[in-house]
Amino acid sequence: MKVGGKHFRTIWRKPDDERVVQLIDQRFLPHDFVIEEVCSVEEMATAIREMHVRGAGLIGASAGYGMYLAALEAVRRDSFDEHMARAVAQLRATRPTAVNLSWAIDRQLQSIAAERTADEKVAIALRTADLIADEDAEHCGMIGQHGLALIRQIAETKRNKPINVLTHCNAGWLAFVDYGSATAPIYAAQDSGLPLHVWVTETRPRNQGSKLTAWELGQHGVSHTVIADSAAGHLMQRGEVDLVIVGTDRTTYTGDVANKIGTYLKALAAKANDVPFYVALPSSSIDWKMRDGLKEIPIEERGAEEVKNADGWFDGQQIAVRIAPDESPAANYGFDVTPRELVTGLITERGVCEANEKSIRSLFPEHAP
Amino acid sequence: MKVGGKHFRTIWRKPDDERVVQLIDQRFLPHDFVIEEVCSVEEMATAIREMHVRGAGLIGASAGYGMYLAALEAVRRDSFDEHMARAVAQLRATRPTAVNLSWAIDRQLQSIAAERTADEKVAIALRTADLIADEDAEHCGMIGQHGLALIRQIAETKRNKPINVLTHCNAGWLAFVDYGSATAPIYAAQDSGLPLHVWVTETRPRNQGSKLTAWELGQHGVSHTVIADSAAGHLMQRGEVDLVIVGTDRTTYTGDVANKIGTYLKALAAKANDVPFYVALPSSSIDWKMRDGLKEIPIEERGAEEVKNADGWFDGQQIAVRIAPDESPAANYGFDVTPRELVTGLITERGVCEANEKSIRSLFPEHAP
Repeated sequence: MKVGGKHFRTIWRKPDDERVVQLIDQRFLPHDFVIEEVCSVEEMATAIREMHVRGAGLIGASAGYGMYLAALEAVRRDSFDEHMARAVAQLRATRPTAVNLSWAIDRQLQSIAAERTADEKVAIALRTADLIADEDAEHCGMIGQHGLALIRQIAETKRNKPINVLTHCNAGWLAFVDYGSATAPIYAAQDSGLPLHVWVTETRPRNQGSKLTAWELGQHGVSHTVIADSAAGHLMQRGEVDLVIVGTDRTTYTGDVANKIGTYLKALAAKANDVPFYVALPSSSIDWKMRDGLKEIPIEERGAEEVKNADGWFDGQQIAVRIAPDESPAANYGFDVTPRELVTGLITERGVCEANEKSIRSLFPEHAP
Repeated sequence: MKVGGKHFRTIWRKPDDERVVQLIDQRFLPHDFVIEEVCSVEEMATAIREMHVRGAGLIGASAGYGMYLAALEAVRRDSFDEHMARAVAQLRATRPTAVNLSWAIDRQLQSIAAERTADEKVAIALRTADLIADEDAEHCGMIGQHGLALIRQIAETKRNKPINVLTHCNAGWLAFVDYGSATAPIYAAQDSGLPLHVWVTETRPRNQGSKLTAWELGQHGVSHTVIADSAAGHLMQRGEVDLVIVGTDRTTYTGDVANKIGTYLKALAAKANDVPFYVALPSSSIDWKMRDGLKEIPIEERGAEEVKNADGWFDGQQIAVRIAPDESPAANYGFDVTPRELVTGLITERGVCEANEKSIRSLFPEHAP
């Protein structure tokens, strides 16, 4: 998507230097647009763990390139396999909830295992990393088209009044390689000239909504309004939301949706007020091994400081202000699980399906049990 | 309640000077404990509007003392009544959602109208202001005892494990004259030795939960944990909440509850997970004229800057950091309405009742239509 009128992806190989990966370091948005160079799997693990990059698809693409950088290093070690095993463990430990992480690592392991020499393994790792990134962008583009059809249906009932979409956190292009998942239908609708307005929940404690989603919508010229997370129910109750679209970090093959903490509350409010609640996801975010989202999906707990502080800009400087008593403990759950009963549908690269096993498998028959 | 071991109320007459009212200026908590002197109705209106004082009962008590200060001024004017009429308009305009504001003003107007001379009017205004404050403290104390009985019932099912209470925003003693509404049962349970833990939602955008509730619970030695507003559903889904108690800025005589934005989402989550959801309120917060909370209660909209910024401390200084793009608009709804169907019960100074007209009127027969 565009940044200051120029097209960017969130991660790419450095032109003229195959050993370096470049990515947007998102920690400084919306204030500073910083590009980071990543030259080792260790640096990539740090970038994922410390959330220079974040979001389902981008974590997958970053892990893909991380595996490529690991293979580059492994060539120079005594044991290629030992170095790769260490790299895999390092990458897997970065973000426990995101299924795209494991998915990308496993895909790379399969590709690498199929080649014989170390040089061939490096070459296939590079091709696979590029492929993961390209497919992610392609799938998000297709999600955009399928979601656009849904938005068009709603537009027909609105008689040229703006369609109000609510989204939570950032499942935007910054969370993927391009287009985003939840935002792909929004960008497609905007580009096709439909009148549109987006409610952006700020998404405490890290404020990915106000910092990232508001920024990327603004850069693309999409009308939007930032709200506190708590305001979502009020707006739905008052008829100010036509449609909720969120992303997911992991969805079970039965349709339970893990996403940023607070998604569940929005889904409850949508159900109570007859607002359609859609989850947009490339199939790489589906966990084909998990049946029960509430029981099985691990929920990442992050540091208390994120809750006790708020991070922002003052006088051009990025600082964290303290917003709670020093002595008070805080808990920081990164995600929650929205049970399938609250989900109107899943928007995937192959089309829209219901949030249940039968409907999901009908779109992805190759994953038959 | 105690601050640093010493007993305080939130508002009181200055000892040795009847023309001055003192109050805790809550804008600087939890970092600085500041006492403000208020000498005119204009200053009191500012204190209410700019939220030096806030919360249902404290707004009522402040308005009561504001009317007394207005009467003191009116004595020195040509027309007592004209000055009072201006003062009433000024006070009424400060916070549209809080019913205690109008309630206290109307009570003062009645008292003042019953006296003949200006000096008598001033004297009765002072007595009425004191009475409003004392009654508020007394009613909160009684709410504590009625709520304690509820907590005891739950404690019996917990076999000495801590009872987990979730509260939103600050309906603590800082929101009243003493004890608080939602916190009164918590303090009563703590004082009676029941094992207790409180989940404190931070309550964006002004963070009254993390700044005020966490502080006052900490000062009283109550075990608590600060969470993002979005985490409330996750905790209820996981069985980590035994009971929700919130306050209210205005409750209709039919049981619809206006309270801090985000209360409605917590009520939905409580209903979905069979968690009892109680609203604690002195009857001064009941609006005996309003039937339909969703249609009739005015919802205050505050400035966008509160949402686009986060206010806290850095290096001993209180500053607001910017957390959203400068160009992005923001909306700031102060309250939402929780429909009576989601409310398990109301804890009032006269006991616990259901959130419906019949049950409410049975406790307050003097308000028969």
